[in-house]
Amino acid sequence: MSQGPSGAGQGLPVGDIVSRLGGTLHGDASVRVLRFAPLERAQSGDVAFLARAEHSRQLEHSHASCVIVPQGVVPDARFAAVIQARDPYLYYARLSQWLQQLDAPEAMRGRHATAVVHDSARVANDAYVDACAVIERDAVIGARAHVGAGCFVGAGAVIGADTRLLPRSVVMHGCRIGERCTLHPGAVVGADGFGWARDEHGAGVRIAQTGSVVIGDDVDIGANTTVDRGALDDTRIADGVKIDNLVQVAHNVQIGAHTALAGCVGIAGSARIGAYCFIGGGVGIAGHLEIADRTVIGGMSLVSRSVRQPGHYTGAFPLDRHENWSANAAALRHLAELRDRIRRLESRLESQNNPAHDKP
Amino acid sequence: MSQGPSGAGQGLPVGDIVSRLGGTLHGDASVRVLRFAPLERAQSGDVAFLARAEHSRQLEHSHASCVIVPQGVVPDARFAAVIQARDPYLYYARLSQWLQQLDAPEAMRGRHATAVVHDSARVANDAYVDACAVIERDAVIGARAHVGAGCFVGAGAVIGADTRLLPRSVVMHGCRIGERCTLHPGAVVGADGFGWARDEHGAGVRIAQTGSVVIGDDVDIGANTTVDRGALDDTRIADGVKIDNLVQVAHNVQIGAHTALAGCVGIAGSARIGAYCFIGGGVGIAGHLEIADRTVIGGMSLVSRSVRQPGHYTGAFPLDRHENWSANAAALRHLAELRDRIRRLESRLESQNNPAHDKP
Amino acid sequence: MSQGPSGAGQGLPVGDIVSRLGGTLHGDASVRVLRFAPLERAQSGDVAFLARAEHSRQLEHSHASCVIVPQGVVPDARFAAVIQARDPYLYYARLSQWLQQLDAPEAMRGRHATAVVHDSARVANDAYVDACAVIERDAVIGARAHVGAGCFVGAGAVIGADTRLLPRSVVMHGCRIGERCTLHPGAVVGADGFGWARDEHGAGVRIAQTGSVVIGDDVDIGANTTVDRGALDDTRIADGVKIDNLVQVAHNVQIGAHTALAGCVGIAGSARIGAYCFIGGGVGIAGHLEIADRTVIGGMSLVSRSVRQPGHYTGAFPLDRHENWSANAAALRHLAELRDRIRRLESRLESQNNPAHDKP
Repeated sequence: MSQGPSGAGQGLPVGDIVSRLGGTLHGDASVRVLRFAPLERAQSGDVAFLARAEHSRQLEHSHASCVIVPQGVVPDARFAAVIQARDPYLYYARLSQWLQQLDAPEAMRGRHATAVVHDSARVANDAYVDACAVIERDAVIGARAHVGAGCFVGAGAVIGADTRLLPRSVVMHGCRIGERCTLHPGAVVGADGFGWARDEHGAGVRIAQTGSVVIGDDVDIGANTTVDRGALDDTRIADGVKIDNLVQVAHNVQIGAHTALAGCVGIAGSARIGAYCFIGGGVGIAGHLEIADRTVIGGMSLVSRSVRQPGHYTGAFPLDRHENWSANAAALRHLAELRDRIRRLESRLESQNNPAHDKP
Repeated sequence: MSQGPSGAGQGLPVGDIVSRLGGTLHGDASVRVLRFAPLERAQSGDVAFLARAEHSRQLEHSHASCVIVPQGVVPDARFAAVIQARDPYLYYARLSQWLQQLDAPEAMRGRHATAVVHDSARVANDAYVDACAVIERDAVIGARAHVGAGCFVGAGAVIGADTRLLPRSVVMHGCRIGERCTLHPGAVVGADGFGWARDEHGAGVRIAQTGSVVIGDDVDIGANTTVDRGALDDTRIADGVKIDNLVQVAHNVQIGAHTALAGCVGIAGSARIGAYCFIGGGVGIAGHLEIADRTVIGGMSLVSRSVRQPGHYTGAFPLDRHENWSANAAALRHLAELRDRIRRLESRLESQNNPAHDKP
Repeated sequence: MSQGPSGAGQGLPVGDIVSRLGGTLHGDASVRVLRFAPLERAQSGDVAFLARAEHSRQLEHSHASCVIVPQGVVPDARFAAVIQARDPYLYYARLSQWLQQLDAPEAMRGRHATAVVHDSARVANDAYVDACAVIERDAVIGARAHVGAGCFVGAGAVIGADTRLLPRSVVMHGCRIGERCTLHPGAVVGADGFGWARDEHGAGVRIAQTGSVVIGDDVDIGANTTVDRGALDDTRIADGVKIDNLVQVAHNVQIGAHTALAGCVGIAGSARIGAYCFIGGGVGIAGHLEIADRTVIGGMSLVSRSVRQPGHYTGAFPLDRHENWSANAAALRHLAELRDRIRRLESRLESQNNPAHDKP
C-alpha cells in the first residue's frame, strides 16, 4: 500500500460519513475509520463492505471497525459501527474517493522549472504543469488541471478544469478534453486516424486527418490507450465514458454517455456505440456500424454487424483441452456439410415413413 | 476542427488542382476551395467527394463549391465546379495532403533548448529536434526529419529524410527508419524481442536480441504500436507498409511492401507476411509461418498455419444473443461426436436400404 | 546488426566458454568466437547452434567457427570447434548474454544533467538516471539500476538492484520492482485499476485504487505493456515472470513464478495464474478465476472459467476461406438445433428398429 494512515489523520467519524453519503447508522457515530480493507483482512480503524446479503457469513471473522452492508442484513453487534446502504458497492466507491482525498498531498500550482510551455498557451493559475511536460502554442489548461511529468499537449488543445493528464500521456493538436477527466499514463489522444487510399499501383496514399477528438466530462482514458482524431468530422466520446487500458478507438468513432470499454478493445472507424453499454475485454468492433444503448458485449467477441436491440451478446470459441478443441475445430470446418447431411437423413426417413412419396 | 481557413489563405483554384492531379473539370476553373468537408455538411469554399456513382443522390443537398465524382456521374450544374476522376477516393487522399500542407506552419529547423543530443550524433541542418527529445551517440537524423517532443533515438539509429517521429515515440539503438515515414505518438521500434530459453528448473533465461529493425520508405507505425528487434537477423518492414495503432510485431517478422495492418494485430516471431496484404483488426498471426502476397485476413481471426494461396480468409465466432451463443457453444464442444453420430445414422439408413449387407 | 565485432575484441576462446557453461568440447579450445549467427549465414568468428538432432543436415553448409550441437550429434571435423550440450538452445541463451556483455558500453553512474530527482529520493551511487527522467519523493533506486531517458518513477516507488527501466517506461507511486528486472520502453506499471460502481443513474463512480503493484526478481515487462495497481490489495507478479509487449494485467491479478505471457494478452481483474504457465498471444483471461500451474493456453483463446487441471487448452475459430467460413459460421448459429435434430433422427431410427416400443 502506498498510502499510510497518517494522511487521514485520526480518520473520518462514521457519523460524518452517514451525514454526507446517506445510509442508516447502527452503533457509535464517533467511531473513526482511516481506510478501506477487505473484510477478511480488516483491522481496527478499517472500514469494509459486504456487497451482497448472500455472503453475510464473511462478516463473522472480520475485525473492521465499521462495515457497510445491504439493507436486509441485520447489524452485528461485534462491529463498533454498521452502515446499512442500498448499494454497498456504490457506497464504497464514494467513500473510497473521500478517504483518498484526505490522504492526498496538497495540489501543486504553477509549473516545474523543466516544463516547456509556449508563451501563447493559457494555463490557469491554479493548474500545475509537471517536469518535462510540453505545452504548445495556443493550448488551454483549465482550472486545477494537472499536466503530469513528460506529458505533451499539442497546439490549440483544450484541457478542462480538474482534468488530470498522468505521466507521459499525449493530447495532440486541437483536441478537446472535458472536465474531471483522467488520462492514464501513456494514453494518446488525437493521433492521426488510419486513413489512406490505394493508388493505381496498390501503394497507400495518406489521407490528411483534419478532424479532431472531442471528449466530454468525467471520462477516463486508460494507460497506453489510443483515441484517433477524425478524418473530416471529429471522433466523439461523451460524458462519463470509462475506457480501460490498451484500447484502440479509431477515427470518427462515437461513444455514448457512460459506456464502459474494458481492456484491449478495438473499435474500427466510424462505429457508433450507444450510451450505457458495456464492452467486454478484447472485443473487436467493425467499422461503420451501430450498437444500441445499454448493449453488453461479452469478452473477445467480434461485432461485425450493427446491434440494434439492446441485450447481452457474445461470440467466442469455448475453451477446451487442446485435443478436443482440435477435433471439434476440424469438424467445424465442415459444419455446413454436416447440416446438409442431417437434412438428407431427415428426408430419407421422411420418405421411408411416407412411402407414397417418391423414394430416391 | 483544428485548422481554420486562414492557413490555406484564399484557397486553391480548382484549375490548379486539375492541372496537378488530373481529372476532367466541368465548370469554373477559378473557383477556390479551402478544405474538404463531407458532402452533406459542405459549404461554400469546401470541396467534397462522391466515392461511388450509386450514391449520387447524396449530391442533391450538398452546398460544396466543388465536388469530385466518378467518371460516369453527370456533372450537376448546381456546383460551381465538378471534377470527374477515375478514383475519387484516391483523388481525395492526394488533394487532402495538398490542402493540409498549405495550412501547415512553416517547418522548424535546429533543436529546442531542452533537447538532449549527443555530440557524436549527426543531425541534418534542416531537421528539427523538439523539446525534451533525446538522441544518443552516433545516431543520424536525415534532412527535414522531425524528432518530436520527448522522443528517444538510441545509439547508432538512423532516421531517414522527411521522416517524422511524433511525440514520445521511441527508436532503439541501431534501428534504421527509411524516408517519409511517420512514427505516431508512443510507438516503440526496436525493443528486445521476446526471446528466452527455459533452464533445467523451468526458469527463463534471456536470449540477447542482437538483430535490429529495418524499416523502408513511406511506412507508418501507429500510436503505441511496438516493433521488436530481431534475435540474430533483423526484423524487416518493407516500403509503403501501413501499421495502425496498438499492433505488436515480434522479432524477425518480415512484412512485404504496401501491406496494411489494422489496429490491435499481433504477429508472432519470424512470421513472413507478403506484399499488398490487408490484415484486419485484432488478427493474431502465429510464428514461423508465411502469408502469400495479396492475402486478406478478416478481423479477429487467428492465422495458425501458412496461407499460401492469396484470397480472403476468416476465422471468427459469429456474434449472437448470449443465450443462443451459450447453447451453440456447448454443442460445439461435442461437434466431433455429433459428426460421428451423423455417420452412424447414415450407415444405419444405408444398411436398412441395402439389407443384403450385414446388419449390426 | 547494431553491434560490431570490436566490442568483443578478439572474441571469447571456446575453452573459456566450456569452462563456464559446461558441455563437451571437440576441437581446438583456443578458437575464438565474436558473436552468434544463424547456421546458414555464419562465417569465421561466428558461433551457431543446432537446436535439434533431426536438423543436423543444416550443419553441412555452415561456415561457423564453432557450433553448439545436441549430445547425440557426432562432431563434424569441418568446424574448428564443436560443443555438445544437453540443451543447445539454453546454451545459446546463456552464451548470447555473455557475448552481449562483452560488447556493451561501460555502465554509467550518477545522473544526467536534465534528470529531475526529488531531494528525498534515494538513488544508489552506482545507479544511473538518464536524460529527462523524473524520480519523485521518497523513491528508491537500487544498486546498478538504470532509469532510462524520459522514465517516470513515482513517489515511494522502489526499483531493485540491477533493474533496467528502458526509455519512457513508467512506475507509478508506491510500486515495488525486484532485482534484475527489465521494463521495456513505454511499459506502465501501477496505473489505476479499472474500478468503478454505477450510481443510481447509471453513471460510473470511480473507486480509489489504493493497492499497489509488487513485482519479483528477474521479471520482464514488455514494451507498452500495462500492469495496474490493486484496488485494496496489491497486484502481484512473482519471480521470473516474462511478459511480452502490449499485454494488459488488470488490478489484483496474481501471476505465479516463471510464467510467460506472449504479446497482446489481456487479463481481467483478480485472476490468479499459476507458476510455469505459458499463455499464448492474444489470449483473454476473465476476472476472478484460477489457472493451474504449468497450464498452456493456445493463442487467441478466451479463458472464461477456471482451469484446475494442468494441460494444453485452446479455443480459437479455425481459419478458412471467407466463403467457407461464412457458410460454417451461419450453420454454427443453429448448432444446438442441429444436435436436437440428430437426437430426433436417432430416436426415430431406434423406434423403427424396435417396433415394440411406442412409436410417436
